[in-house]
Amino acid sequence: MPAALDFWFDFASTYSYPAAVRIGALAARADVRVRFRPFLLGPIFKAQGWTTSPFNLYPEKGRYMWRDLERLCADLDVPFRRPDPFPQNSLLAARVALVALDQGRGEAFCVALFRAQFGDGRRIDDVGVLDDVLATLQIDPSPVLAAARSDANKTRLRAQTEEAQRLGLFGAPSFTTEDGELFWGNDRLEAALRWAGGQRIESSE
Amino acid sequence: MPAALDFWFDFASTYSYPAAVRIGALAARADVRVRFRPFLLGPIFKAQGWTTSPFNLYPEKGRYMWRDLERLCADLDVPFRRPDPFPQNSLLAARVALVALDQGRGEAFCVALFRAQFGDGRRIDDVGVLDDVLATLQIDPSPVLAAARSDANKTRLRAQTEEAQRLGLFGAPSFTTEDGELFWGNDRLEAALRWAGGQRIESSE
Repeated sequence: MPAALDFWFDFASTYSYPAAVRIGALAARADVRVRFRPFLLGPIFKAQGWTTSPFNLYPEKGRYMWRDLERLCADLDVPFRRPDPFPQNSLLAARVALVALDQGRGEAFCVALFRAQFGDGRRIDDVGVLDDVLATLQIDPSPVLAAARSDANKTRLRAQTEEAQRLGLFGAPSFTTEDGELFWGNDRLEAALRWAGGQRIESSE
Repeated sequence: MPAALDFWFDFASTYSYPAAVRIGALAARADVRVRFRPFLLGPIFKAQGWTTSPFNLYPEKGRYMWRDLERLCADLDVPFRRPDPFPQNSLLAARVALVALDQGRGEAFCVALFRAQFGDGRRIDDVGVLDDVLATLQIDPSPVLAAARSDANKTRLRAQTEEAQRLGLFGAPSFTTEDGELFWGNDRLEAALRWAGGQRIESSE
């Protein structure tokens, strides 16, 4: 049984895009089983007193982030287009992702939806876009969207976000290991995989 | 003439410690000439409405940062001790660094002072500690401290911090290239050196 790593992301989160694009191949190489965990950053930001993305609240940080993301995508050779508006409402996307993940096609869906938003500039709060992305993956959109909107699935997403809060997550992407380590940011993906894969250090605490 | 990279740091900044420890060897390998640029984050944070480090203002982020830094230092095999208080007052340290850098011993001084604080838990606002670190490097402390406290040197540090603000810096460590790129964070050091060294990508802007 390979080691496991939880990959926490919000579809509106900019650095979750390169993380989602990269994680599949890197995890396979590290022999780590990744669990995709969509959640919502909104309630977590709200608890910190933020009403929108910190990249909007702090213009210097925002300006830097867009340029940094552009450079990262060029290095990865993946398309990049700054979404408008930003951040997008990721509620329905996260609900759909939970259902798709149950059906075993969720990881491809998540990567494709990130690309649609940050590569092609499409809106993830548009049902038509979600339909398109599902259809491209040969998934019939109607039953998935119906299940996504069910009360049970809404409750599940709320529970997932509450779990993220309990784990101390404050941003995305984040990675959590079975032994309780938290790694934050696309640039910590490799370290998180190394940790999950067994290259552990002793904590001095 | 090798390419140049400016390394901006505040002595109170946690992630500036691993960056200062790593930059010498990495820059030599990349054939990039690094210019050490101490500055003060305080005025920049104040402009964002923060009265202390964001790691204190946002406890989850702070908790994560200390654990992350501990892991990073273990990976680098450098000592780590959480400084108390945090953040420390880095004003005198930055002034002394400017003088030491003029005298050609500044880089060793900066690395040694970061180690004293984050490795040995010593206070950088304590003149005795600054004296010790200078003496360890065979630098006579008295003239350096006198020059550090001169009006001309105080003005210089202010100008350096204002330049950092003009360049759009919002945190430390940061790296700026001759062609106007900004990289933020210890985890961007390699990318900044690659950029400065000539492996440039086209901006789509």
